Amino acid sequence: MSGMPTAPLLADLERIVGSEHVLADPALRLGYELDWSGRYRGDALAVVRPAGPEQVAEVVRACRAARVPIVPQGGNTGLVGGSVPRAGAVLLSLRRLTTFEPVDVDGGAVVAAAGATLARVHEAADAAGLAYGVDLAARDSATIGGTIATNAGGIHVFRNGMTRDQVLGVEAVLGDGTLVRRLDAPRKDNTGYALAQLLTGSEGTLGIVTAARLRLLPRRDRRATAFVGLGGVAQAIAVARELRRHLPALDAVEAILADALAVAVRHGGDRPLPGDHAAYLLVEAADVRDPEPDLVAALARIPGTDDTVVASDGAARARLWRLREGLPEDLSREGVPHSIDVALPLPRLAGFIDRLAATVEAAAPGSRLFVFGHLLDGNLHVIVIGPDIDDDTADDAVLALALELGGTVSAEHGIGVAKVGWLARDRSAGDLAAMRAIKHAFDPDGILNPGVLLG
Amino acid sequence: MSGMPTAPLLADLERIVGSEHVLADPALRLGYELDWSGRYRGDALAVVRPAGPEQVAEVVRACRAARVPIVPQGGNTGLVGGSVPRAGAVLLSLRRLTTFEPVDVDGGAVVAAAGATLARVHEAADAAGLAYGVDLAARDSATIGGTIATNAGGIHVFRNGMTRDQVLGVEAVLGDGTLVRRLDAPRKDNTGYALAQLLTGSEGTLGIVTAARLRLLPRRDRRATAFVGLGGVAQAIAVARELRRHLPALDAVEAILADALAVAVRHGGDRPLPGDHAAYLLVEAADVRDPEPDLVAALARIPGTDDTVVASDGAARARLWRLREGLPEDLSREGVPHSIDVALPLPRLAGFIDRLAATVEAAAPGSRLFVFGHLLDGNLHVIVIGPDIDDDTADDAVLALALELGGTVSAEHGIGVAKVGWLARDRSAGDLAAMRAIKHAFDPDGILNPGVLLG
Repeated sequence: MSGMPTAPLLADLERIVGSEHVLADPALRLGYELDWSGRYRGDALAVVRPAGPEQVAEVVRACRAARVPIVPQGGNTGLVGGSVPRAGAVLLSLRRLTTFEPVDVDGGAVVAAAGATLARVHEAADAAGLAYGVDLAARDSATIGGTIATNAGGIHVFRNGMTRDQVLGVEAVLGDGTLVRRLDAPRKDNTGYALAQLLTGSEGTLGIVTAARLRLLPRRDRRATAFVGLGGVAQAIAVARELRRHLPALDAVEAILADALAVAVRHGGDRPLPGDHAAYLLVEAADVRDPEPDLVAALARIPGTDDTVVASDGAARARLWRLREGLPEDLSREGVPHSIDVALPLPRLAGFIDRLAATVEAAAPGSRLFVFGHLLDGNLHVIVIGPDIDDDTADDAVLALALELGGTVSAEHGIGVAKVGWLARDRSAGDLAAMRAIKHAFDPDGILNPGVLLG
Repeated sequence: MSGMPTAPLLADLERIVGSEHVLADPALRLGYELDWSGRYRGDALAVVRPAGPEQVAEVVRACRAARVPIVPQGGNTGLVGGSVPRAGAVLLSLRRLTTFEPVDVDGGAVVAAAGATLARVHEAADAAGLAYGVDLAARDSATIGGTIATNAGGIHVFRNGMTRDQVLGVEAVLGDGTLVRRLDAPRKDNTGYALAQLLTGSEGTLGIVTAARLRLLPRRDRRATAFVGLGGVAQAIAVARELRRHLPALDAVEAILADALAVAVRHGGDRPLPGDHAAYLLVEAADVRDPEPDLVAALARIPGTDDTVVASDGAARARLWRLREGLPEDLSREGVPHSIDVALPLPRLAGFIDRLAATVEAAAPGSRLFVFGHLLDGNLHVIVIGPDIDDDTADDAVLALALELGGTVSAEHGIGVAKVGWLARDRSAGDLAAMRAIKHAFDPDGILNPGVLLG
């Protein structure tokens, strides 16, 4: 792939985006080359910061001609190394693409450029009396382009679906330089193949998303939040199922196991309940009218939920959410987190938890284990702290356990570079062949994010 | 493509599926060769009825070797000729694939073979205390495979999304014989490209879907239905927007214009309201508790909705729904319906209606015009009766008007053979190039449904 002289390419890139937006100085590159967890880093040929889709297309053509690979990057908040450059690649940052059209209130949609943050979309939707269906803790840094590339999940998936379900259309540059563009699609649009859905979750290996039209939902701005102490994961699942069935306003059901909650409290979170429990649920209801009576009534009819606190005012709710959303950062203060993202069928989830501690201890003796996640999706984040930064033994053991129990090796973080070896164990030969055929069709020279997803 | 001797292929097909499932007799083929509207028909080489996915794969390999095209068909309820054979093709009927796994209550999903009807999925979901998110009038004939191939929409899209949003995984045979299969995917599954979403809506041109894992939703089985008489489409849109904003239980908002309602009443529907109106809304709310008070209150706060009837009991609700769901059949009794499926941005919908009558009259003088549709999706079904069966003049004029006003030429029916010429006017050159690249990757010899979608 490389081996050609790079000076002419750098001159080309400076001509396309302006010399001040081609960062070759290692000190300037660093923030783009190291991921926030500290696990992934690489030396880019240069960091290139285009201003719009036309410049992205020109950069792709220049890199293709020079046979230099491109690693697209949004907010660099990913967890599987998918946006960290491999040596010699051009790091293409989308953060300057921040164009933001007015919300289409009637159509229930908004068009945002790739570099707009998730928080910005939420703010715009809210101001228009609407809501965006995907939310996650990294909302202030994560970009729309990044959430599309990784098909981000988060806390509302059981209700609203993944990012893929929100994307009504995209503008993107494919690996062969083709510009696809559908930013005015109505909600119902059966005019050909689902290019937007295909690009969503393709982790920058098929095309570089430069903008998207996103579905917005009616806003449900009255909220009530409960924190519930429970005897274990099996009981937490039973409670969550009852709530899903009887509380239409249910908007989030997050599980936190005892060890993870202890870390949140140690790093400044308020202790939420008087008692100690093996597992906790953070439950939120959202409605057009105060949902607290419904939430309280729904919990009251479920046995074993006596140690519960319910909050409706913003500050009290924020204190409860801080326990969950602060976890990635709280845990990273305890050491380098190995963050393992799995989903299991709900009936297998308790059995997975039962075997998890022994599995991790056997793989990485003396390491510490923390578990939290999006319970109704069967999606757990397993955090192992202790193993060296490059030691994947515990990660592999947890993924193997998930697969053994009928789960998947990536629920919402993606494959990235971290799980390339695992993809073939989770997907069939036919599925992989079909994916390779698409990759070749969209990126015939393999310049887009090589090493990621399909390897 | 053809020109080779077909006797060896027929012998092969008989060996694969059994001679009783290869129908070469024109009398037996007829039900598969003519669509229900009477607009599309063709002579198949044979109708082939495989029993399962392995036989489908063998049929594809045999046809590919013989270079004979395949037209896949489910319930044959499509409206754009996509499942009607072109001369010399093998008509591959999926109707014998009816395997149905028990509902996965915890996972909120069910696996159904392609030939299972939509009604069967609804029954199974309901029996398990869940619901399937897509529903439409042809539910007793339409198959799951057909609804996936066409990305069926229907009456709940504004709430639950299209079929593409329900499909968690598929089993399918691609045009090159590759079997893709992901029927055990959890709700969150970020392991590679969205093969299921790509195949959904590909109209049998990329692969033949043999089974799918479908997302199920919590059941909201208390229902209330209102029929509202209004002054026109602009007012109907205003009412629908208010309901969407203030009534979270809102589950369906169907519009019927006066001429269409008159036909429903003429063919046996009960007259719903004392007054005559330019436009009517059929509104339904669904909740875990009786939604009638909320529905009545929501309507009461909207001015101009005085001529309204509300029904909660099943028989009364069915009488209201019959006015909407009987329309395709009621209209077909008036003549051969030219059924035109468009979607427009909501702010353009009233302007579209304003110009529609003159547009149709200019294109097909003396023809009759009927309009109904899924209002919150901006999706109207325009029915023109009068023009000859093969005269597309009025269809083309309506599609041109929709495009001129920023709409799409296919909201939920698909492109089929009917709108191939229109696709290039609605989608960009880059989008079409990307679609062709996918088509070539999945079906290199072009044996799957040639003439459909990309032409």
